[in-house]
Amino acid sequence: MKNIEVCLTPELLKLYTAENKAVVVVDIFRATSTMVTALSEGVAAILPVEDLETCRQLSSEGYIIAGERNGQKAEGFVLGNSPLEYLEGAYSGQKIAMTTTNGTFAINQVKEKAEEILMGAFLNLQATADYLHTLNLDVLILCAGWKGKFNLEDTLYAGALVSLLSSTFDTSCDGALAAKFLYEQNSDQLESFLSQASHTKRLQNHNIEQDIKFCLTLNKYPIVVSLSGKILTITQEK
Amino acid sequence: MKNIEVCLTPELLKLYTAENKAVVVVDIFRATSTMVTALSEGVAAILPVEDLETCRQLSSEGYIIAGERNGQKAEGFVLGNSPLEYLEGAYSGQKIAMTTTNGTFAINQVKEKAEEILMGAFLNLQATADYLHTLNLDVLILCAGWKGKFNLEDTLYAGALVSLLSSTFDTSCDGALAAKFLYEQNSDQLESFLSQASHTKRLQNHNIEQDIKFCLTLNKYPIVVSLSGKILTITQEK
Repeated sequence: MKNIEVCLTPELLKLYTAENKAVVVVDIFRATSTMVTALSEGVAAILPVEDLETCRQLSSEGYIIAGERNGQKAEGFVLGNSPLEYLEGAYSGQKIAMTTTNGTFAINQVKEKAEEILMGAFLNLQATADYLHTLNLDVLILCAGWKGKFNLEDTLYAGALVSLLSSTFDTSCDGALAAKFLYEQNSDQLESFLSQASHTKRLQNHNIEQDIKFCLTLNKYPIVVSLSGKILTITQEK
Repeated sequence: MKNIEVCLTPELLKLYTAENKAVVVVDIFRATSTMVTALSEGVAAILPVEDLETCRQLSSEGYIIAGERNGQKAEGFVLGNSPLEYLEGAYSGQKIAMTTTNGTFAINQVKEKAEEILMGAFLNLQATADYLHTLNLDVLILCAGWKGKFNLEDTLYAGALVSLLSSTFDTSCDGALAAKFLYEQNSDQLESFLSQASHTKRLQNHNIEQDIKFCLTLNKYPIVVSLSGKILTITQEK
């Protein structure tokens, strides 16, 4: 039986093995939700970049630059970190270079280790689960957290994915068990359960209630997003 | 309002501040449960020690030595890490030097930082909560985890303590919110909920079902255990 584990923050990644696994990176508010939305809405490719300066320089190489720090759009960037900016094909056919506080950092931690690296969001939950069923790989879900700390929203997504995969994956990791329980008990009230979470409060201060609601939408986009080389694109089913 | 946070493993401690706080260290299976039991059962003092060799040498200084690694009694030690060894005053009046895989490591991480350091166990849950109500200190619960990883049993205890303190403490930390939810939904079935946990399975392989059951007993001992200098003793109420 294949195995599934949950690493609750990138700070704990050294305790897990990413090699020969499918790693699902999740940053619900908002990096991976935004990546899934952008590609579904026609963006050609996304280059995740760890620091603001590298990202900024890519502007001269034909990339639209998207940058966020501490929940707000970084100075001088065209786009911030809202999935709503990409709706109705607003950047269809474009290449995006993107840097965020937690999400792009998490991707970099596993990018040369894992066999497959997928972007997880509630928006493409079922498609990602279906794809993982077809692979002959153990799964590690890497929650991006908030500046190294555990957060509720990424954990709830991890629990949702563990729940969907539990028929064919073994889940003896305590992080996976806790996440699965938290999700299954709150699956019909994600928004109200998360309303007490630290990150939701932080984001609400920036007037992005609409982003939160959108990021908690289940299965709006039936796509799988993976890292291919340095670039995130829509994966073709194998 | 006082604040309460939960650090889910010592690996994340660098993201929290222990200074000027009451830190509750918890290692349910079994270090802090054993410490609370030993002192309740008449042990005069416990000296927590991080490594086996230092602990072994204390044998010549009048200490009974207790040592555990990976769930089993360390070679050449008088005691392992079972609370049952201390029942019926078996070591009443004695001094114990103790080293364990996770618990004594966690204590050492905060011992020169926190204002007060308490040992938390289900066995003395209410007494610890009552004591924290009397202090004018914010609280940080430090889960010992398993070799750096998150574990369910320490998290459930953290949730129980957050739940008891929530009337007078603010709990905006996501770790505290998740722990509180996990505990409140499972408070009447801790043993069956934990039967799926990795650590329970690990300990069951060592035939210590009785230890597990004992460590999950609520409020058997109405004492508060704190670190005073290098020594753990029963705290007098202030």
